[in-house]
Amino acid sequence: MSANTSQNLGKSYPRVDAADKVTGSMQYASDIYLPGMLMCKVLKSPKAHARIVRIDTSRAMQLPGVRAIITGEDVPDAYFGNGAVHDKRILARDKVRYMGEPVAAVAAVDEMTAQEAVELIDVTYEDLPAVTDPLDALRPDAPLVHEELPSYSGFAEGMGGNICTTLSNDRGDVDAAFEQADYIFEDTFRSQGINQGYLEAMACVANVDPSGRINVWTSTQAPYQIRATLATVVDCPLSRLRIIPMEMGGGFGAKLRLCVEAYPVLLSMRTGKPIKLIATREETFTLSGFRLPTIVYLKTGVMQDGKIVAREAISIFDMGAHLGAGVQSGVSHTLGPYNIPNFRMRSYAVYTNKIWAGSYRASGVADVTFAVESHADIVARKLGMDPWEFRKRNAFQEGDLAIQGGTIPANGLHETMDAIKTHMDLPRQPEPGTGIGLAMCQWRSGSGPSTASVSIQEDGTVSLLTGSVDITGTDTVFAQIVAEALGVDVSQVVIAKRDTDLAPFTGPSGGSRITYSQGKTVQMATEDAKEQLVALAADLLDAQPQMLTCADGGVYVTDDPDKRASLAQLARRSVSTSGPIIGTASLSAMPFAPIFSTQAAEVKVDRETGNIRILRFSQAQDVGVAINPMAIEGQIDGGVVQGIGRAVSEEVVIKDGEILNPSLTTYLMPMAADVPSIENILVEVPAEDGPFGARAVAEPPGFGPPAAIANAIEDAVGIRLKTLPLSADKVLQALRGEATEATDIDPELLQRLRQ
Amino acid sequence: MSANTSQNLGKSYPRVDAADKVTGSMQYASDIYLPGMLMCKVLKSPKAHARIVRIDTSRAMQLPGVRAIITGEDVPDAYFGNGAVHDKRILARDKVRYMGEPVAAVAAVDEMTAQEAVELIDVTYEDLPAVTDPLDALRPDAPLVHEELPSYSGFAEGMGGNICTTLSNDRGDVDAAFEQADYIFEDTFRSQGINQGYLEAMACVANVDPSGRINVWTSTQAPYQIRATLATVVDCPLSRLRIIPMEMGGGFGAKLRLCVEAYPVLLSMRTGKPIKLIATREETFTLSGFRLPTIVYLKTGVMQDGKIVAREAISIFDMGAHLGAGVQSGVSHTLGPYNIPNFRMRSYAVYTNKIWAGSYRASGVADVTFAVESHADIVARKLGMDPWEFRKRNAFQEGDLAIQGGTIPANGLHETMDAIKTHMDLPRQPEPGTGIGLAMCQWRSGSGPSTASVSIQEDGTVSLLTGSVDITGTDTVFAQIVAEALGVDVSQVVIAKRDTDLAPFTGPSGGSRITYSQGKTVQMATEDAKEQLVALAADLLDAQPQMLTCADGGVYVTDDPDKRASLAQLARRSVSTSGPIIGTASLSAMPFAPIFSTQAAEVKVDRETGNIRILRFSQAQDVGVAINPMAIEGQIDGGVVQGIGRAVSEEVVIKDGEILNPSLTTYLMPMAADVPSIENILVEVPAEDGPFGARAVAEPPGFGPPAAIANAIEDAVGIRLKTLPLSADKVLQALRGEATEATDIDPELLQRLRQ
Repeated sequence: MSANTSQNLGKSYPRVDAADKVTGSMQYASDIYLPGMLMCKVLKSPKAHARIVRIDTSRAMQLPGVRAIITGEDVPDAYFGNGAVHDKRILARDKVRYMGEPVAAVAAVDEMTAQEAVELIDVTYEDLPAVTDPLDALRPDAPLVHEELPSYSGFAEGMGGNICTTLSNDRGDVDAAFEQADYIFEDTFRSQGINQGYLEAMACVANVDPSGRINVWTSTQAPYQIRATLATVVDCPLSRLRIIPMEMGGGFGAKLRLCVEAYPVLLSMRTGKPIKLIATREETFTLSGFRLPTIVYLKTGVMQDGKIVAREAISIFDMGAHLGAGVQSGVSHTLGPYNIPNFRMRSYAVYTNKIWAGSYRASGVADVTFAVESHADIVARKLGMDPWEFRKRNAFQEGDLAIQGGTIPANGLHETMDAIKTHMDLPRQPEPGTGIGLAMCQWRSGSGPSTASVSIQEDGTVSLLTGSVDITGTDTVFAQIVAEALGVDVSQVVIAKRDTDLAPFTGPSGGSRITYSQGKTVQMATEDAKEQLVALAADLLDAQPQMLTCADGGVYVTDDPDKRASLAQLARRSVSTSGPIIGTASLSAMPFAPIFSTQAAEVKVDRETGNIRILRFSQAQDVGVAINPMAIEGQIDGGVVQGIGRAVSEEVVIKDGEILNPSLTTYLMPMAADVPSIENILVEVPAEDGPFGARAVAEPPGFGPPAAIANAIEDAVGIRLKTLPLSADKVLQALRGEATEATDIDPELLQRLRQ
Repeated sequence: MSANTSQNLGKSYPRVDAADKVTGSMQYASDIYLPGMLMCKVLKSPKAHARIVRIDTSRAMQLPGVRAIITGEDVPDAYFGNGAVHDKRILARDKVRYMGEPVAAVAAVDEMTAQEAVELIDVTYEDLPAVTDPLDALRPDAPLVHEELPSYSGFAEGMGGNICTTLSNDRGDVDAAFEQADYIFEDTFRSQGINQGYLEAMACVANVDPSGRINVWTSTQAPYQIRATLATVVDCPLSRLRIIPMEMGGGFGAKLRLCVEAYPVLLSMRTGKPIKLIATREETFTLSGFRLPTIVYLKTGVMQDGKIVAREAISIFDMGAHLGAGVQSGVSHTLGPYNIPNFRMRSYAVYTNKIWAGSYRASGVADVTFAVESHADIVARKLGMDPWEFRKRNAFQEGDLAIQGGTIPANGLHETMDAIKTHMDLPRQPEPGTGIGLAMCQWRSGSGPSTASVSIQEDGTVSLLTGSVDITGTDTVFAQIVAEALGVDVSQVVIAKRDTDLAPFTGPSGGSRITYSQGKTVQMATEDAKEQLVALAADLLDAQPQMLTCADGGVYVTDDPDKRASLAQLARRSVSTSGPIIGTASLSAMPFAPIFSTQAAEVKVDRETGNIRILRFSQAQDVGVAINPMAIEGQIDGGVVQGIGRAVSEEVVIKDGEILNPSLTTYLMPMAADVPSIENILVEVPAEDGPFGARAVAEPPGFGPPAAIANAIEDAVGIRLKTLPLSADKVLQALRGEATEATDIDPELLQRLRQ
């Protein structure tokens, strides 16, 4: 079905929750008030690495209003994992591994009392040497963050020392290809620590019923996944836990994993009272994982004509004290959207004495894209080729081998390149001090388990139940998909509020999987219901099902539209014949349907101050079919803004393990004045299996800005920055010809990592 | 499957919600507190029948704290029906038809202010002649309760005047049969007004979202049904309404229909604020329909040998001012559980100027059973037959024609008779002043639309979603059914809290339909899920599905039980293969599966005071298969206690339309001291289509006590009472040979009704 003839696709419906949100009546986790509720605060380690000698809670317990204090000794001795390795306890025992690691949690009658009690807990530490730089952590004599790593569940080959993941991927004969290459280029890039900057800090209320069931109201992207982790942490069967995901005020990956939920839960189990925790802004830096720096070494073999024949990529991901977001996503992007026949990829996830690395809008991919797309320009310029032409020559064609295996299906990659070329009038020589830079972005559409259930009410309206938390307006897209599949108006669709008791297991809301995978399940469940409606209509109208059309709020004989039954009639009929209509669908995975985009930044560099002004930012993205163009534009605008922050101003500054700027006044996210008007071009090359051809959208927009801006800076003033952020300081230093921070990896270490 | 070999059936599991209830933490509608919530009170008519000349709310509006007042003029001019005829408005316009009819509703900052405002509303009435006796209402010159009846939606043939339903049912040649009969007996019986006496008065909170969606937390048996009525009353699409049924503190039929919900909803729509209404105990008599008196005339033709050959039954149901619970159920019981080849049934539902007649545990059937089973004893005694033998001779046999059409399937009727005969050692001559009375009860098992959805969590536990509100522990029975169907422990089953957005349309919780019909759907949905689990196991274990058994928390090769996969393994496998498992089922109706019981009362009559002491009460009921014997015993004990109240002490006294005893201190429900130990015998003759053979249970236990006790009184002291309740006054009057209240219908009227 084409978007153009549809009643419901390609329409910019306002969000179904718009009125509730703009009037402030939407309920977030912190809006939950239960009788007798206590407030929770967490005591965090002031040490980057230290042995815990003794915890004395007696003074704190004597404070009036304090109801309970728990330490590592009071909770099940369970390890759990934010990633593949179970390397984490919910409260530290024996030693702390990073500043901010939770050591104790307090429940008290109010927040101030809880905080006061936290400060009255006496902990005696014995300092241990800390390692905070991932390259240092790779040294044989480095202090070990986890001495007991080999004993952890999930320990596997290639781990050891401070290394918690190694990934390799090889294709062709990369060494031979490098030998045959006309040119070889090597660059190393470094990205910075980045906080997700979601507006709503984490919040959670937990209440243990007298029956023992544990109810958890929380701001999460992944209710089923945190349910599983919580079951490990509190050592109870899954069926005792009910996770009620509340409206989420931003997540961007930070709310994909168990974060603060365990403390209210454990304290509610101890006190029998409801417990609330609302994180402070500072705690979004100290209780919740964000991204830590990544180092990417790239070596590329190219022929005279610009064809890339070989790539070596060695990436080092700083994981902090615990394996959080995996490195797979980042590593799989070290080729870029290019068909490179021979490659060698090596990647290392490394423990350091810092907070664990969380997810952030496709963890690691933005870091890697900065490297790959900066490197692409460097190579093109050194070859004397136009950067657009160089990319065009190497860009994937349909049928090329994908890095994950399988082949690249039909897609709009080249259309996005062509669209940006036209839109930006490339190649073009901008004014002096002004430059244009490109970056290409790619992402697999997110997949994973999805379920949906649709029921038809007796007036023909439709209720949809899924386990997916709304993220960036996905509930609205679901309503459109249901409406389209059934031929009703979007206003006829009710999206039910879900919890883990009510909806079947489903994957998290993240990784660009909701519209593409969950949306597909919604479409299938609706079609299941539609089939039942058509069967009822066939009986009622005395017609064969294949002669019928379901549209315009009813089912009618295609050749004789006056012979029709409304959905209300059919739904009422179902009640006394087949039984009320329920349509369901369940999927484990969706086919690979990559998303590609091309981005372009036009920037002006102030040679006096080093300041970069972004004049324009354009992007063309293949969205398959734009179900809700307004929602898509909002989502990709947001991604670009995040990417601009990552490019020029954002950096979590960590010194000796201490976060120096855990606030929004010192951690500099772009403000309205920092953001140019963003020009979006939606390319629509339908994905064969997506709902009505839609592809995922969410991840790519944030990937490109750092490289596009770095490339534009070189175009403008001839300097090349390889370390993020592209701050005015660094620009100025480079303009003055002063040495900027070296990015290269010690050759001996590089050789070791290459193995 | 037999109950005896089962892991989960025939086991007295405590209720799944027991802990929450005994600790007081269960949430009822009145426990809902929302920010900015206002309280609602309703102004009720002080007149039985009057024209509304003028309503002046100005004084009331000036009271500080009053936020809104609505009258009939302020709300959509919609008629709706509690039954088949749309004869009711949510707030009176033009005229009031009973004392207590809602005339206005107030929202104010607290309940006392709202009540004060209610009292400040000035209504000018112009009295109209009222009719409060149903026989008076049948007179041609009676005042009309609804002058405009013919214009109502639902008006049908046979209605008119004050008659709002007529039902006829005829079989054979009843006049010829009466002519051939050896004896003809005629009796007329009268029952009283009865309040359901539920513990939790009605309560409701309504809140209109900024998006316009209307959320209604309420104590209801029928969320989908009140949603539909509310949509009419507030004139909005169904999809704007979300009904969240809260835990219900008793309903017994009173919470099957829209009751107080509309007032908070309309006031929330007007004010934009959440509105709460908590009814007082008095309002359970004035805002909610209860049962009004029924008059049943029975004429029976019998042969010398005790075989009944003909029956004429004429019933008059007092409906109050609006048609509420229909009369079909009552009328269809005028044969009793007896095979009577020729009959004529006529019934009339009659408007009077009293509150509308609501439902109460099978509306009308207890009244009719009092008549039929009293009459059975009268006939038997007059024939000189033992009452048990007389009943035995006439009782249904499998294959007999049922009154509703179709035949009587296999059932335990005769087993219940035999069990009571043995248990009570019948026939037996008790001590002087002491008597034994029997009554037989019957009910079709409730049917109607049912849906269920089952999902398997990744640890193998199971979540169940239905739209059915828990009633008398049905959630516990569902958990047992799921556990039994899947071979897991009851503790592995989670019963999700539902609302009308979440669960598909389903019938109300009433009419003995939940275990039999909804439970069947739960079984079917679980079996759907089981089939998927078995398919996954077949693949994993490399076996044919038919070689596998699903039991003990896993699926195994029947002949090689060590070859097994746990449900957790299979559920996890589903996530990456078939997609998470969802089982669903939907049913419109279930086959006719009658329930029969035999009850016996042994009473002692105090000749000095007229007091009746119930020494023993026994009942044998065919439950098909006892899924949860403890739950069943609780349910049938409760029914007997209600029946005893109906028999001896309960009566809503209405004089000139005014309820004189609307409180639990004056409306006399049995207290612990009034109730004997109740002896239950569960007969198990499986229902072919019921879940694991279970039949419905709820309705019959309350039907028999009035007749059993009346029969026992005659057995004890030789007096026959035909009017309920069997109060000490009436007993004493009869013992003294004084005339008791006449029950007969004027012969001329009777002749008219017979047509």
